[in-house]
Amino acid sequence: MRILILGGDGYLGWPTAMHFAARGDEVCVVDNYLRRTISQETDSDPLFRLPDLDERVAEFERHSGKTIKAIIADIAEFDQCSKIVEEFKPDTIIHYAEQPSAPYSMLNQPAAALTLKNNLGTTFNVIWAAINHNPKIHIVKLGTMGEYGTPNIDIEEGWLEIEHKGRKDKFLYPRAAGSLYHTTKVLDTDLLWFYVRTYNLRVTDLMQGPVYGLITPQNVGNEALFPNFHYDDIFGTVVNRFLVQAVAGIPLTVYGKGEQTRGYLNLNDTLQCVALAADSPVESGDLRILNQFTEQFTVNELAERVYDAGKNIGLEVEIKSIKNPRKEKEEHYYNAAHSGLLELGLEPNYMTKEILSEMLVHISAKKDNIETRKIMPRVSWS
Amino acid sequence: MRILILGGDGYLGWPTAMHFAARGDEVCVVDNYLRRTISQETDSDPLFRLPDLDERVAEFERHSGKTIKAIIADIAEFDQCSKIVEEFKPDTIIHYAEQPSAPYSMLNQPAAALTLKNNLGTTFNVIWAAINHNPKIHIVKLGTMGEYGTPNIDIEEGWLEIEHKGRKDKFLYPRAAGSLYHTTKVLDTDLLWFYVRTYNLRVTDLMQGPVYGLITPQNVGNEALFPNFHYDDIFGTVVNRFLVQAVAGIPLTVYGKGEQTRGYLNLNDTLQCVALAADSPVESGDLRILNQFTEQFTVNELAERVYDAGKNIGLEVEIKSIKNPRKEKEEHYYNAAHSGLLELGLEPNYMTKEILSEMLVHISAKKDNIETRKIMPRVSWS
Repeated sequence: MRILILGGDGYLGWPTAMHFAARGDEVCVVDNYLRRTISQETDSDPLFRLPDLDERVAEFERHSGKTIKAIIADIAEFDQCSKIVEEFKPDTIIHYAEQPSAPYSMLNQPAAALTLKNNLGTTFNVIWAAINHNPKIHIVKLGTMGEYGTPNIDIEEGWLEIEHKGRKDKFLYPRAAGSLYHTTKVLDTDLLWFYVRTYNLRVTDLMQGPVYGLITPQNVGNEALFPNFHYDDIFGTVVNRFLVQAVAGIPLTVYGKGEQTRGYLNLNDTLQCVALAADSPVESGDLRILNQFTEQFTVNELAERVYDAGKNIGLEVEIKSIKNPRKEKEEHYYNAAHSGLLELGLEPNYMTKEILSEMLVHISAKKDNIETRKIMPRVSWS
Repeated sequence: MRILILGGDGYLGWPTAMHFAARGDEVCVVDNYLRRTISQETDSDPLFRLPDLDERVAEFERHSGKTIKAIIADIAEFDQCSKIVEEFKPDTIIHYAEQPSAPYSMLNQPAAALTLKNNLGTTFNVIWAAINHNPKIHIVKLGTMGEYGTPNIDIEEGWLEIEHKGRKDKFLYPRAAGSLYHTTKVLDTDLLWFYVRTYNLRVTDLMQGPVYGLITPQNVGNEALFPNFHYDDIFGTVVNRFLVQAVAGIPLTVYGKGEQTRGYLNLNDTLQCVALAADSPVESGDLRILNQFTEQFTVNELAERVYDAGKNIGLEVEIKSIKNPRKEKEEHYYNAAHSGLLELGLEPNYMTKEILSEMLVHISAKKDNIETRKIMPRVSWS
């Protein structure tokens, strides 16, 4: 397959590129370094040195003998997006090209404007590149479980049959997200669904939970091929923050009550899921929505898991609740379906003590790089 | 009240400005002439000569002794939007500043991009102007009944309580619109709801059906104060097209089967509704959604009404079905709630034979201006 990966410099984009290239697909990655730019501007540098995309591609070629084509371009500019799709002629576009930070999207008006413009803009341009050049391209879009928010009813996979006053219809599952970033993904889905049903496009929208992990079969033993690892309040996930806090010997900071439940998955499972989606494209006119996570637990449970893993390698871990900088329910019902990807063949890698311990060992090797000032919340939802 | 009307040059914006000014409110209108620009570019000029905003304001002052402040500016540019809100200090913002044509939004990629950028951009900027300058401003946003599409269950006013597997929650009513223009209004509502619940803004979202009418108490006998009247396939509503076809002696063109049902309302009822909404602002943190129409009927029934009104003034009217340029259900269930505005005090003006006849008389006076080449569909949904 010819696979075009947008946002190919990202935490998921880069491992995805290596994954497809390693199995023999023809891979082109595009990125405009937006995340690098923002992380520099917000004093949110990653823990490991991050070679630029050209360097990574060259290193991957040395390491594996496989090639990846890299283009530095802005998918939010239609001419650039259109030209790349026209020339590369992808069978599948994997669309990660979004500003990925919820806190950044809540920082101020300019940051919110950038997030809205970039995220809607890239999705819109991918849609129109497909309409203009080849409506048969299978677009695999990364959404987020955060689109659903925390409703008081079971979360289904994208769609909901509703019975109302004795009549029935099927709708996109109603969504209410917790940040502007997550809301842009709600809008992306609305936009994709409109164009899918109007122009018979082919789209899979993967509603993904928070991803953790560093090592994939393609980067074992080669740090230059690691994905970016952010632990700051802006780009770091709660998993990364907790792991770094454990290594730095400072308390794990649980936001509020810590009963916020989310669905998590291993980086290697993201690679599996995206490949399973790409290998089973949907029909023209179909928007397939899959909930992409393997296990769901609360922030308190996550803290306990990191505590246990820390103990396992001799770290003394403390857990502390701090004021929640976000506006979110800290105790809520949460039960989300996630059978679609299992049916496609996903074999989950769960968040075991061994996996967390392995991450802690890698982080410990970079302990001197940890800058604790970056960890506490700098952005508040008000 | 201090009322800021965005899109104040529009079909509804201008009559709204006169309505509030006439009753003694302090009114400022803003427009960037986007609709005028597009209607020129697409050969879609209105039937009546349209004085520019400065001319209209001067004429209104002569006519009524009341003043309206007019600013030519682009609300999609945040600096301009923010400065106007900061300086005018509105109590209420009435937000009509959107690219209003469904067919234009489906013309091609540049037209779609302009629609998305303008409509989301103006809404986003209004939100942030309120956050930055005064979150207590009541934002009255014009949505559209088209956000709901044509679901197979009853349409409620904005919200739906859903029971699913024995549990319940309340959600924004799930929406699936029929054009990109209508979809941008779905996205507007999503965006407004996110910021309302996160920053305690005050918003009323009026889901309006197609509006018809020319004459309001403020422009009787003064054509220079008429709203724009488009009858072309891009900016003209189905009502205007039918009326002009009746006057021109060409068949009324029903798209497809003509069983498409929509909720309609009189221009004077829009003025009532917007004033009722403005006069009863919602609390901070509330998004109130009201369905703004007074009666619902099919396109075939509309054609019959125009036929009858034409007969009434001696016109011979023919009705003809043509291939539907849109992708929409031509037969469907439709039953939409609309009690909220009636409860606020709306006194409907229905689409009577007299009202349609009066419009036909005004149009007949401009019969020589009718350019029939503009009426047939020039944009198709594929």
